[in-house]
Amino acid sequence: MTTFYEAIEAIQPKPITQIQKVGLLDSINRVLAVDIASDIDFPPFNKATMDGFAFRFSDVDDTLKLKIADELFAGSNKDIALKPKDAVRIMTGAKVPEYCDSVVEFEAVTEKEGYIVSKKPPKKGSNIAYFGEDLKKGETVLKKGTLIKTNMVNLLAQLSCVSIKVYRKLKIGVITTGDELVSPGEPQKPSSIIDTSHYSLIAQINQFNQEAVDYGKLPDDLQTIEKTLDIATKTCDIVVITGGSSFGDKDYTADALNNIGAKILVRTIDMKPGRPTIIALKDNCYIVGSPGNPVSTFSVFRLFVGNIISKMLGCSDFDVRFLKCSITFDYNKKPDRMHFLPVDVRFDQNGYKAYKIPYNGSGDFSALSKANAFLAIPKEIQNARLADIFEFFFI
Amino acid sequence: MTTFYEAIEAIQPKPITQIQKVGLLDSINRVLAVDIASDIDFPPFNKATMDGFAFRFSDVDDTLKLKIADELFAGSNKDIALKPKDAVRIMTGAKVPEYCDSVVEFEAVTEKEGYIVSKKPPKKGSNIAYFGEDLKKGETVLKKGTLIKTNMVNLLAQLSCVSIKVYRKLKIGVITTGDELVSPGEPQKPSSIIDTSHYSLIAQINQFNQEAVDYGKLPDDLQTIEKTLDIATKTCDIVVITGGSSFGDKDYTADALNNIGAKILVRTIDMKPGRPTIIALKDNCYIVGSPGNPVSTFSVFRLFVGNIISKMLGCSDFDVRFLKCSITFDYNKKPDRMHFLPVDVRFDQNGYKAYKIPYNGSGDFSALSKANAFLAIPKEIQNARLADIFEFFFI
Repeated sequence: MTTFYEAIEAIQPKPITQIQKVGLLDSINRVLAVDIASDIDFPPFNKATMDGFAFRFSDVDDTLKLKIADELFAGSNKDIALKPKDAVRIMTGAKVPEYCDSVVEFEAVTEKEGYIVSKKPPKKGSNIAYFGEDLKKGETVLKKGTLIKTNMVNLLAQLSCVSIKVYRKLKIGVITTGDELVSPGEPQKPSSIIDTSHYSLIAQINQFNQEAVDYGKLPDDLQTIEKTLDIATKTCDIVVITGGSSFGDKDYTADALNNIGAKILVRTIDMKPGRPTIIALKDNCYIVGSPGNPVSTFSVFRLFVGNIISKMLGCSDFDVRFLKCSITFDYNKKPDRMHFLPVDVRFDQNGYKAYKIPYNGSGDFSALSKANAFLAIPKEIQNARLADIFEFFFI
Repeated sequence: MTTFYEAIEAIQPKPITQIQKVGLLDSINRVLAVDIASDIDFPPFNKATMDGFAFRFSDVDDTLKLKIADELFAGSNKDIALKPKDAVRIMTGAKVPEYCDSVVEFEAVTEKEGYIVSKKPPKKGSNIAYFGEDLKKGETVLKKGTLIKTNMVNLLAQLSCVSIKVYRKLKIGVITTGDELVSPGEPQKPSSIIDTSHYSLIAQINQFNQEAVDYGKLPDDLQTIEKTLDIATKTCDIVVITGGSSFGDKDYTADALNNIGAKILVRTIDMKPGRPTIIALKDNCYIVGSPGNPVSTFSVFRLFVGNIISKMLGCSDFDVRFLKCSITFDYNKKPDRMHFLPVDVRFDQNGYKAYKIPYNGSGDFSALSKANAFLAIPKEIQNARLADIFEFFFI
């Protein structure tokens, strides 16, 4: 059996190279496909960073006493000739006149009969952002593989990047299998199971800002599964297929993958939930076959599909990020598999603590809906004790 | 001057009551407008949670030796009559026959000539999810005010909630002001400033999954600003207006708000950046006037607009969440204002550490693009020292 870490290692997809141009506002949560270098020095001039008075530091002794000679607004392009001991009323964002090297803020001076006075002059160079201090022409400001976020928008707009080169979205196929599956609203038999994973997988794909391709729910029929997988792997970058990944009598995923010529890289993983997880490769398409239970499907997607997306787009933000927490309960398990346990993690004092959620195994979508994280309890652990430290990741 | 905490307290909007119905997949990142109760018991029958053999615990002594009488797949609705010492091959998700009370997994038994044998029988009740154990009919499973997330989708689909009642999106108006502002691509004068905040505000509104209403960029002209604010406050739930919130000669936001009959609740806040922040109320519309610099605009939006959205929609997820970190640098300031400093926070050992980013004040969009968090250094602090603990929030 493969360990979780070996399964992650087995995933080595060919990076995506196709580039798409999108508008600045549409680039949020997309992956930058090129390095972005600054084509400007910024500020483009010495700029006041406070409303106040610009002056020359050498004109000031122990006290500052200067004549208000003129005023400058942001956006004004006025040339000002100043004499020694002159000061200029200046607004935030305005260009500091060449004669001046410092700005004193309004609140620090008193104004009287055309003069300003202050007993505590500021330091030389105060309240000025100098030419080129924030950005230098030619400097790489955002690297290829960056997930574009809202805090990068000002920078991109400043560089007039209103059209941004990002990698195309990945096409991720969704297939659920099982004779027992019915869609919400469809007639049910007493032993029917609602195909909730279909919604949950598409929601997760949308959340990752990739493109879901829905191949519907299939009966437990080898030929149908094989045919659908064949079509899906020719269209998609990743295909997720749930149910049928185990070794039961109606589990056809592995057979279907073999029949279409996919290479099975991982057949089982010593983790819980998700032991019968299949990871396979057909041409450049990765196939992830997960057990049909909702918690397995959800966590397998988060762990492995997230990892494949990360590697295909060269951007680690899609991968789970393991943090550490102490646990507030005891937990006993066999030392045979890594457990991913849905928990409620809260920030308490200066660290994270995991709180227990009643959990009835991988079918328990109710526990999943209450969780905000998965605790990762390593394979070799048998008795986890209150206050022990483990890794976890937020959902 | 108002403290940050007093400014947050001053925000007491009327909660939104208008409800909209959206499809399950469109409900992600929307706020639930009603409590959702379960209309089912789940599991609807005693259900196998592993592939294995169902049996009756009292048929087993020290060793388990049972005859394989039949088999059951998930979705099968077969009635099975069992005799003492019979076992049934059963797949995950299938209904456990009435006669049985335990399931032993495949891996724990050896199969031989129609019988299964195991030297270590599992505990009574193993590997069964009992009727109603996960969900009880009538139980409230998701509360009004919940931000719907991907991990709740299975539950909602299970309850056939394919159409979900959520609060309507808030309309958030965006106005930037300043004679110096030009849009990216427009002809520039040497002292022009690119209106980057316009993009950044709309990106932040989109990220919150609310509706941006763009009122464009306005010159420093009282009448134009007044007229636009009047229209915007009649249409929107929140209006953000940047630039002109200070006390400079061309700062018209406060005058315009007074002229349209808005009530100014907060005029300045002892924080940096964002001291000249205005919070006002006109009928049910909140107006947030922030200084025009990109970092001020960004952080004021995150702190105050996020808080207004939280309160209007009854959902705290839009609010900043303060966590704690230790700092890896010294930081000196005047003890007059709370500082929000863009930093890079990393999880290191078991806690968060804040790393310094070169920062040139509130105009420094370059620092903002490198930050993943804002450190909050309280007003009264003068000398923050390496390893001191402060609050921060992720962007």
